[in-house]
Amino acid sequence: MITTLGQMADTVRLSGVKRRIAVACAQDPNTVGSLYRAVSEGFVDAIMIGQPDRILSTCQNTGADPGRFTILEAADEKSAAELAVSLTRSGEADIVMKGLVGTDKFLRAVLDKEKGLLPHGAVMSYVCAVEIPAYHKLLFITDTAVLPFPDIEQKVAMARYAIEMARRFGIDKPRVALVGASEKVSDRFPNTLDYNEMCRMAESGEIENCIMDGPLDLFLACDPESVKIKGVNTPVAGDADILLFPSLEACNPFYKALMLFAGGELAGMICGTSKPVVLMSRSESELSKYYCVALSCLMAPQNG
Amino acid sequence: MITTLGQMADTVRLSGVKRRIAVACAQDPNTVGSLYRAVSEGFVDAIMIGQPDRILSTCQNTGADPGRFTILEAADEKSAAELAVSLTRSGEADIVMKGLVGTDKFLRAVLDKEKGLLPHGAVMSYVCAVEIPAYHKLLFITDTAVLPFPDIEQKVAMARYAIEMARRFGIDKPRVALVGASEKVSDRFPNTLDYNEMCRMAESGEIENCIMDGPLDLFLACDPESVKIKGVNTPVAGDADILLFPSLEACNPFYKALMLFAGGELAGMICGTSKPVVLMSRSESELSKYYCVALSCLMAPQNG
Repeated sequence: MITTLGQMADTVRLSGVKRRIAVACAQDPNTVGSLYRAVSEGFVDAIMIGQPDRILSTCQNTGADPGRFTILEAADEKSAAELAVSLTRSGEADIVMKGLVGTDKFLRAVLDKEKGLLPHGAVMSYVCAVEIPAYHKLLFITDTAVLPFPDIEQKVAMARYAIEMARRFGIDKPRVALVGASEKVSDRFPNTLDYNEMCRMAESGEIENCIMDGPLDLFLACDPESVKIKGVNTPVAGDADILLFPSLEACNPFYKALMLFAGGELAGMICGTSKPVVLMSRSESELSKYYCVALSCLMAPQNG
Repeated sequence: MITTLGQMADTVRLSGVKRRIAVACAQDPNTVGSLYRAVSEGFVDAIMIGQPDRILSTCQNTGADPGRFTILEAADEKSAAELAVSLTRSGEADIVMKGLVGTDKFLRAVLDKEKGLLPHGAVMSYVCAVEIPAYHKLLFITDTAVLPFPDIEQKVAMARYAIEMARRFGIDKPRVALVGASEKVSDRFPNTLDYNEMCRMAESGEIENCIMDGPLDLFLACDPESVKIKGVNTPVAGDADILLFPSLEACNPFYKALMLFAGGELAGMICGTSKPVVLMSRSESELSKYYCVALSCLMAPQNG
C-alpha cells in the first residue's frame, strides 16, 4: 500500500513502463521542470507543443536539456490544445497535460464531441490524492475542481473514480466517507438522502470494492477517538481513505485549507475521460506538477 | 487587537467585570472544570442547574470546590434547560450554557416563542473564532453549526454577527472574505450572486464596519502570495479576518479540518439571541469550553 506521494512516484519510476505525454503550451517553467524530471527518471516521453523558441528559452532558463523532449510547433493556444488532445486521442500519446494555456481553452479541446476525450454520457470529475502530515495515510478527495452540485448519478461516478484511484495505490477496499455536517440523514440536507441511497448501492454491490458510510462529519470520518466518544457505529471508523463532498463549494475550500494550513501536498487529475488529463493551476509548484505527472502514469493503464 | 484565544481570555479576566452564567445539566466534568476555572479567575459566577448529587460528585471527581457554585435543583433535562433560559431571560443570569443535555432539548428552551431568548424575526447563527498555528491571527468562521443553506438575508446576518465579534477583539474594520470555489461570479453558483449583492451593501454602508469581497477562494482569502501570483485585485488581499461560507455542508468540514489536521483551537457561540448562548459538543475539551465561556463574557455587553 502506497501511503505517501513520494512512494507513489517511486512506484511509477521503478515500474519500467514509459508513458508519452502531450503538453499544450509547454513553455511554463514549472511544467518544463516537472517533465524534465520525469523524462530524466525514465518513465515519461514528453511531446512539448507550442512556440518552439519560447519552449527552448524556458529550457535554457530552467537548465533542462531540450534534446530530451520532442518539440512540436503550434501557432496559438487553441491549436496547441487541439494538437495535444488529437495526439492523445489517436494513441500517439497516452496522457494529455495543460501547460501555460487557459483552463477554458484547454477543456474545450478535451470536451469536443467529435475530437475530444470524453466518451458520450460519461461524467467528468476531479480526484486529488492529498498527503497531510497529521494523517497516517493519503486522503483521496473529490470533487475539488469540476462538478458544482453533483446529482446522485454524478456522486456515484465520483465515488467510483476515487475508489479506482485508491485501488491503484494498493488499497483493496478503500473506506469511503460521504461527508456531511453530522451523521444524521435529513430532508433538510438533500445530499444526505443521496448518501443513504449510495450506501445501499455499496451494500448491494452496485458500487464495488469499497466500505462506504455517510453522512459522516469529518471527525467521524478521520478521527477514531471521536468515533469512540460519540459512540457512533460506522464501518469507516475514523479511518477514511476517500472523502466525497456534497458540492464543489464544500470540497474546494476544504482541500485548500489542507494545503495552506496543514502542510498538505497533492496530486490530482481529471477522471472519466478516455485518457488521463493532467490539469492544474498555473501557479502550482514544480513538485506538485511532477506528482500529477506521476499520478497520470499510474492511472494510465485504466484508460483507452 | 487580540490575536490569540489566550489573549482573549486574559482580556476578559483582567476586565474586572463579572458575568453570571446559568448552566443546564451542569454535571459534565469538562463543563464543571471550565466553569471552576472561570469562577476561580473571578470573571464568572456560575449557577449550576441539575441533580445536585450528580453535580456534587462531579465536583469531587474534578477537584472543584462546590462552595464556589450556586447549585439549583431540576428534575430532568427539560426543566433544567427551561430554568437556565428563564433565569437568563429574567436577568438573574447574563449568559446561558448547555451542559450534559441534548442539543435539541436545550435549543427548544432557547427558541421558545413565549419564554425563550430569540427575538421575533431574528436570525440565529453560529460564529467561531479559530486559532491556527499556520495563520498570523484569529480567523472568524461562520456558520459552523446552525444554518444549512442560508439565503441572502441570513448571510447578511451571519456577516454582521461575525463583524460584531471581530470588533470586540479590537479589529476595527475586519476583512470579510465571502468564500467560494473561485473568484468568479456565475449563475452556476447562485451563492456568488448573493455575494455580489452583499459587496454592494458593504460598499453602500448597509453592512457596516468591514472590508468585504467575494467570491474569493481560500487562497485569495488567506494567502497574500496567491493574490500576487493570480494578479487578482481584492481589498481582502489574502489577509481575511472573517470567512463566510455558502452552506453548513461547506463550513462544517472546513473548521473541523482546522481542528483535526492544522492544530486549531476554537471558541464559538450562538449569535442573534437576546443573551449569549454557549452551545458546544459534549465531547469538547475543558480548555475549549473555558474559551467559549470567556468569549460569551466578552460578547455579553452587546445583548440584553
